[in-house]
Amino acid sequence: MNAVIELLNSHRSIRKFTDQPIPQETLNTLVQAGQAAATSSFIQACTVIQVNDKDTRSQLVECSGGQVYVGEAPAFLVFCADMQRLKLACEMNDAEINAGFTEQFITATVDVALFAQNVSIAAESLGMGVAYIGGIRNQIARVSELLDLPELVYPVFGLCLGYPDQNPEVKPRLPVDVVLKQDSYNDNGNKETIAEYDKSVREYYQTRTGGNKEMTWSEQMSGMMIKEARPHMLNFLKEKGFLLK
Amino acid sequence: MNAVIELLNSHRSIRKFTDQPIPQETLNTLVQAGQAAATSSFIQACTVIQVNDKDTRSQLVECSGGQVYVGEAPAFLVFCADMQRLKLACEMNDAEINAGFTEQFITATVDVALFAQNVSIAAESLGMGVAYIGGIRNQIARVSELLDLPELVYPVFGLCLGYPDQNPEVKPRLPVDVVLKQDSYNDNGNKETIAEYDKSVREYYQTRTGGNKEMTWSEQMSGMMIKEARPHMLNFLKEKGFLLK
Repeated sequence: MNAVIELLNSHRSIRKFTDQPIPQETLNTLVQAGQAAATSSFIQACTVIQVNDKDTRSQLVECSGGQVYVGEAPAFLVFCADMQRLKLACEMNDAEINAGFTEQFITATVDVALFAQNVSIAAESLGMGVAYIGGIRNQIARVSELLDLPELVYPVFGLCLGYPDQNPEVKPRLPVDVVLKQDSYNDNGNKETIAEYDKSVREYYQTRTGGNKEMTWSEQMSGMMIKEARPHMLNFLKEKGFLLK
Repeated sequence: MNAVIELLNSHRSIRKFTDQPIPQETLNTLVQAGQAAATSSFIQACTVIQVNDKDTRSQLVECSGGQVYVGEAPAFLVFCADMQRLKLACEMNDAEINAGFTEQFITATVDVALFAQNVSIAAESLGMGVAYIGGIRNQIARVSELLDLPELVYPVFGLCLGYPDQNPEVKPRLPVDVVLKQDSYNDNGNKETIAEYDKSVREYYQTRTGGNKEMTWSEQMSGMMIKEARPHMLNFLKEKGFLLK
């Protein structure tokens, strides 16, 4: 174990920040660290919108179901999967983009996530905390309109950044032998291991909430997975030119 | 700038490795660092298959279009988006999963990418090099069969790991002002900036290939984006229970 791995292992979402601002120069450094991540066939399909405008921020709080830290964080970035720039690259060479493939949706989305994880780690290495905000997909059409996103661009998630004003515990993860398999997928024993893990998650929530929340991982997951999951997504993405074939 | 950010900025894909093996304990440490990444609503939807079997490796070389380092790397991991484990969590609580939503496809895919980026950074911090292998999606159905992947699981990409036996240059990225925008998407000036960037990419390839390859970024992208992109993906994913609605 070294200092980098310790940093990675110490990640927890931060949702309360001090007033200390993040200089623009630092934000540029973070984004450049994001750009340094691997990119599928060099497509560089991530565009970041830094949202400074107070009114836009308030609207993004609403779009993400009232997560106030989206408005309060010293910096808020929206990470977009961007094939519009690839369309421009085609136009610059008198070529016509053949967009709409599911494969392209995957590569662009993965590009964005690798990029954002670098930004997060760079921020944490400077003593900041971050929280990913998938909640902006609650009202993804409104978010896209707010940020003037053209076709072939979609907002994957937001990221709150700032200096932590809280110190939450690291959440226990699944035992590694449920997650790492040798040579083939094999879920023998998963059920028993998850049942054990469920106990440690229950304890984590009990400790953290002073006994108010008592929930295992599998309970939490099943409560969520029986519901519809943002059923507007597919239509929205198709309208933006993704997932057509 | 600090040592972590320098590490992030020094990333380049490594495709040639020394014989030095990676102990299983180290691989477990890397995967646990992967697990420490943020996970959407705690779903922990990433499963990693470590492929040791020589025959499976050879077949994976074929599946990824003859990338020999997939067979040669001291370790090869396949990162899978896994909702099968969430189905199990539902079953453990007598609930029925409501799968097939595009939203779930996004969260699972993003989970995998954040996880893998942590694994990569942890590996690089220990002096290893990595290469993401999206090429396994060339023959994704065959890869899934080889690894016995059940429904609600798909292989997003592979990752070669090992100690570098080459020292390629870092590839120049797009200028930060093309990638980072203030308050709204705005591509004014992108074309001019990309035209400038094109020159530096051409130089990079010229230097790296001793003048044999002369290609700008926009040329490379347009050459690729006019083609079909793995048109089998959508059907395959639907058969696995993804992107149905």
